[in-house]
Amino acid sequence: MRRRLSVAALGMSLVCGVAAVAAARGPARAAWLPVPIAGAIQPADAIRAAAPSDWREVAPDDLLIVELRDGARVAIELAPEFAPVHVANIRRFARSGWWQDAAVYRVQDDYVAQWGLNETKKPLPDGVVAAPPAEYERPLAGLRLRPLGFPDSYAPMAGHAGGWPVGYDPGRGRAWLAHCYAMVGVSRDLAPDTGSGAELYAVIGHAPRHLDRNIALVGRVIDGIGALSALPRGTGDLGFYTDRKSDVPIARVRLASEMPASERPRYEVLRSDSRAFSLYVTGRANRGGDFFRVPAGGVDLCNVTVPVRRKGV
Amino acid sequence: MRRRLSVAALGMSLVCGVAAVAAARGPARAAWLPVPIAGAIQPADAIRAAAPSDWREVAPDDLLIVELRDGARVAIELAPEFAPVHVANIRRFARSGWWQDAAVYRVQDDYVAQWGLNETKKPLPDGVVAAPPAEYERPLAGLRLRPLGFPDSYAPMAGHAGGWPVGYDPGRGRAWLAHCYAMVGVSRDLAPDTGSGAELYAVIGHAPRHLDRNIALVGRVIDGIGALSALPRGTGDLGFYTDRKSDVPIARVRLASEMPASERPRYEVLRSDSRAFSLYVTGRANRGGDFFRVPAGGVDLCNVTVPVRRKGV
Repeated sequence: MRRRLSVAALGMSLVCGVAAVAAARGPARAAWLPVPIAGAIQPADAIRAAAPSDWREVAPDDLLIVELRDGARVAIELAPEFAPVHVANIRRFARSGWWQDAAVYRVQDDYVAQWGLNETKKPLPDGVVAAPPAEYERPLAGLRLRPLGFPDSYAPMAGHAGGWPVGYDPGRGRAWLAHCYAMVGVSRDLAPDTGSGAELYAVIGHAPRHLDRNIALVGRVIDGIGALSALPRGTGDLGFYTDRKSDVPIARVRLASEMPASERPRYEVLRSDSRAFSLYVTGRANRGGDFFRVPAGGVDLCNVTVPVRRKGV
Repeated sequence: MRRRLSVAALGMSLVCGVAAVAAARGPARAAWLPVPIAGAIQPADAIRAAAPSDWREVAPDDLLIVELRDGARVAIELAPEFAPVHVANIRRFARSGWWQDAAVYRVQDDYVAQWGLNETKKPLPDGVVAAPPAEYERPLAGLRLRPLGFPDSYAPMAGHAGGWPVGYDPGRGRAWLAHCYAMVGVSRDLAPDTGSGAELYAVIGHAPRHLDRNIALVGRVIDGIGALSALPRGTGDLGFYTDRKSDVPIARVRLASEMPASERPRYEVLRSDSRAFSLYVTGRANRGGDFFRVPAGGVDLCNVTVPVRRKGV
């Protein structure tokens, strides 16, 4: 909503921001605890200040590349630590070429874009589990959680773990992925059906967090979401395209691990247990610079878009 | 995320939902207080149960119709009770035909679509206030507030007033519009510039609430947001289109009050001080029906999309 300011004009200097923070903090604390930081910092400065070790590369087997027939590419990081059976299915769908002839067939404004074969009766590939367990949440133990530090309307606690936005309940010892923008989930019918992973959707609007713990989330679009979010909205109920000619054809879906190493796109995600990430969250909650007049002093889980960068381009 | 269920299959019956609620509530209370309701209710049922008097019609002078050259229409309800000088400017821009030759020239994914004349030096119409006051908040007094009843990450309190999503601070006695999906604001440069209203934007992604109290919000797209949210994303910094040929031309912008009465589109907004609205919020927080397995037990301000309906079509 700035009219047209250069990106450079938005931030205070990098060195300045980080030095001020370090002075205010005193001795280092465990990096995955929220760090109260005096003053305002620009999120972009926090990202720029991250050390190489603050980034983790997305494993080629966790990187799903959806190519639309018009040439656009959508890169999805899979989350096997949250939905292992669904993710194993998705890898099998990809490796078997099952999604040839698939298409985006539903785009509901402020909600989701959905793709797959739209319930044709094509037999599932070998090894796919037709009725996976309800991988809607997992044990809290084993996650390196960074509490957001601000209230959440949907979960007892919210924060980040492994670069994923999560809700969690310390009382029950359970955690779950949150339906933030660009998160990818598995379409299903009524319970106990959880969906095989054949039909997937990406969130393209304000986070529909009421779906948390009701659907298996399996990953996040980390590049190219615009190829889905800018599609024409469907005019049928729930945003389904009413005419098959409106479907947006998918050329192929591959894991990066299936591609020749030289052709694989590579991405890095900012580690949510890094100090850089804590600075970033603080910056999102207290926007500084010349444009902002009043820092919010808070941020909601899904407004902390986890930083991703392309590697080697 | 449901694969393909009919809308009818999603809800319990209307009568059933409302009767159960009435039984649980006991005697009627002031309608604009949150009503704790036992059990789950479908938001659609709450809307269907609303009485005619629970709806208010948008005044023709508060209804801005943006027509794109491709024929698409975007209807915006203006909010003079929050930003009177900016809204008066916008009415003058419309009535003088100032936005002829305007275009959408910025579309930033998960953020905003922005339109206007992109800072050409066209003289402002007579009566337009070039430098309006910072109408970023207003007195709490005079608003009929319905507290959301769930925590907010951005404001001491959040709720709805007059059908608008608001943050507020009882301590300071101030209230402000919130940057929810489809809200419309006034582009500006650095403070103390507040923007004249010549350049406007609509939110097309997850609510950028950090902009609250930093920008004048002037209304909300109540119909046709898809004509903005589905536009190709700009490839320049901040989503600006880099080539003027990419701009999406606007044919004209009129107030409904300028149109012949027989041609005016008419809309009604569900009153946020109605009991139907309280039921709707409760339904958004506790989704029932056959699809949902776990109701969230909460909802965030911007996930309570204020219901709107077309009248007389």
